[in-house]
Order: sequence, then C-alpha cells, then structure tokens
Amino acid sequence: MTDERLQKQIRFIQEVDKLKNIFRQSRIHDGSRRENDAEHSWHLALMALLLGEYSKDSGIDMLKVVKMCIIHDLVEIYAGDTFCYDAKANEDKLEREKAAAEKIFGLLPQDQGEELKALWEEFDAMETPEAKYAASMDRLQPVLLNYMNKGGTWQEHNVKKDQVIRRNQHIKDGAPKLWEFVSELLDDAVEKGYLKE
Amino acid sequence: MTDERLQKQIRFIQEVDKLKNIFRQSRIHDGSRRENDAEHSWHLALMALLLGEYSKDSGIDMLKVVKMCIIHDLVEIYAGDTFCYDAKANEDKLEREKAAAEKIFGLLPQDQGEELKALWEEFDAMETPEAKYAASMDRLQPVLLNYMNKGGTWQEHNVKKDQVIRRNQHIKDGAPKLWEFVSELLDDAVEKGYLKE
Repeated sequence: MTDERLQKQIRFIQEVDKLKNIFRQSRIHDGSRRENDAEHSWHLALMALLLGEYSKDSGIDMLKVVKMCIIHDLVEIYAGDTFCYDAKANEDKLEREKAAAEKIFGLLPQDQGEELKALWEEFDAMETPEAKYAASMDRLQPVLLNYMNKGGTWQEHNVKKDQVIRRNQHIKDGAPKLWEFVSELLDDAVEKGYLKE
Repeated sequence: MTDERLQKQIRFIQEVDKLKNIFRQSRIHDGSRRENDAEHSWHLALMALLLGEYSKDSGIDMLKVVKMCIIHDLVEIYAGDTFCYDAKANEDKLEREKAAAEKIFGLLPQDQGEELKALWEEFDAMETPEAKYAASMDRLQPVLLNYMNKGGTWQEHNVKKDQVIRRNQHIKDGAPKLWEFVSELLDDAVEKGYLKE
C-alpha cells in the first residue's frame, strides 16, 4: 500500500495539472491563442537557465531560481491570472493569492508544502538576488512574446510605452544588461508601430 | 547595441516558444484537450523536484535533472512528437531527433548549445543516475494523466496493461518505489475498466 506521504505528493501533482487551464493575457509566438501558466512557467525556467550570466548578483543559486520559476504561478489555480495593467483586479490580488497558497501548498507533506510556500513568498517579495533575477525573467518573457506578436497584449489593451517601462523596470534590479536590451526592443516596437509612445 | 551572444540567446528563447504548439497524445486532467510539450516539460520538472527522495541513487544532482526535464523535448519542435506505442514511427525517431538537436541547439552560443545537446543525449541514453530518474518522471507523468482521464490514450489506442508495463518499467531503474506505486495504479486501472488486462 502506498504510504500517506507519497499519496499526498501524487495528489498535489495531479491537482497542479489545472495550471494548464489557467490562461494569461499574453499570446504565444504566432498569436494563435493565449498562453497558459504551465507553459509560461516552463519558458521562464529555460530562460533562467540560459541567461544566468546577466544576473546582477553573480553568485545566485540557480536551482532555487528554477524552483521559483516552476512554482511561482501555482496560486493562480485558485486565484486566477490577474492582468498586470488591470489596477482594480490588482487591489485584492495579494489576499486572493495568499489564501490560494495555503490551499495548494497545504496538499503536500508539511516539509515540502512549507518549502514551496516560502519560495513563493520569497519570489513575490523580490528582495533576494534569486527572486530579483527570477522576477526579471517573469517580466522579460511577455515582452518578448508581445514583440513577436507585433504588439499582442499592448495593442489589445491600448498599453503605452511608459506603462511597459514602469511595469518592467524590475528587470534593471535583477539583470541590468537585459534591461538595456528591453529598452532597445521597446524603442524598436514603437518604431514598428507595435507599441504606442 | 545588443551583442551577438545575447542576440543568439534571445533568438533561441523565441524559437523554443514553438514547443507550445507540439501536441502529445496524452490529454490533460479533464480530458478537454491534448497536452503540449511545453506544459508536459513543466510538469516533469515539478515532479522531479518533489519526488527526489524516491530516486534509486540518493546523491543525484537535482539541477541537472531539472535541466533535462526542461529541455528533453526541444528536438520535437522539428522532429515532432512520436507516439510511444507507434512502432513504425519509432523506427527513424533517433535519426530525426539527432538532426533536430543539431538545428535547435545550434542556435545558441557554442558553449551553451554544446551543454544542452550533451544533456539531451545523456537523458536519451538513460544511463546516468540523473537520466534514469528524469526518465522515470517522463514515464510516470502520462500514466498519471491517463488514470485521471479514466483511460485516455490507453482507451483511444487500445493499449493493454502488458504494453504499459513494458513501456514504463524504466521507472524501476530510476525510482523503484514509484514503480511499486505505478503497478498498484495499473491494477486499479484494470479493475475500474480504464485499461485492458
């Protein structure tokens, strides 16, 4: 008979499959459909592995960063995706997500639930070098998608360049060189008519 | 101006977005649609992080395992997904995937391209402790989905229990206790009518 610890782990692994049904605003590269949180999290993890050399802090723990990327959106299974430019929805975001964190991480054996919940809180606080770098990936990824889509969410929601800059300047804290890259990309997006000045 | 190294990395990050359009046979938990390779890879990475205590070898390098999970299906961007129970399609699978590996990993700066290609080859060979454990996750995940779907791909393709056992017994080499769990799950699946004896 499978013991209780393994049963809890399997139950969690089955429950998190629901992340594949949580859709974000961003569309995938060809614009054919919105991206879901599971594939977004995968993309972040791969980016984090490849762009580590641009992290502001050089001694970051990459396993911790990748864990953050993999689990950072699990709370959205219950709290839903909150569009970053929707001020009203962002008012109670933290409260909704905290309750969701209790629920989802509470499915795991206590030691693992506590570890993942602490990682999610660390990611969300954006204070440690690992969290700053992981947050940079989380900002950079939709910018790349919107650029590939010739404007994507920016066009759809009439987002302007200064809003994108305000939203994404955290990249500067986590990976300054990538912020330079994003600044150039945004100028180019304005020039190409993907983004309003 | 963005230097050539970063340009190559960004180009690769954009190209791999195509993994979100490579659909597998397995359906997600609610059976509503097939799962794509990107979300499958995310699921494996999370499973690997949680089930490490069941790895046959206790000293595995978890960062390496997670990297393997994240990149193991990238070759399918060009080679497509090959259904594991399709004998004919599996004949030229290796050849197709080797050519795809050259193409996809060749987009990266040389050092990173070589690292990822070597990791993919190591995963595929299933010889090192990390590759055996990662392969166990790759086998366990669709079994869990098929069970949640009340038979899913097993029903659709008339797959029988002994085929599932033959295909998945690698789990025994990577994580013996998870193999015990899978054996019980398959017995239960037969009893419930999800899988033919």
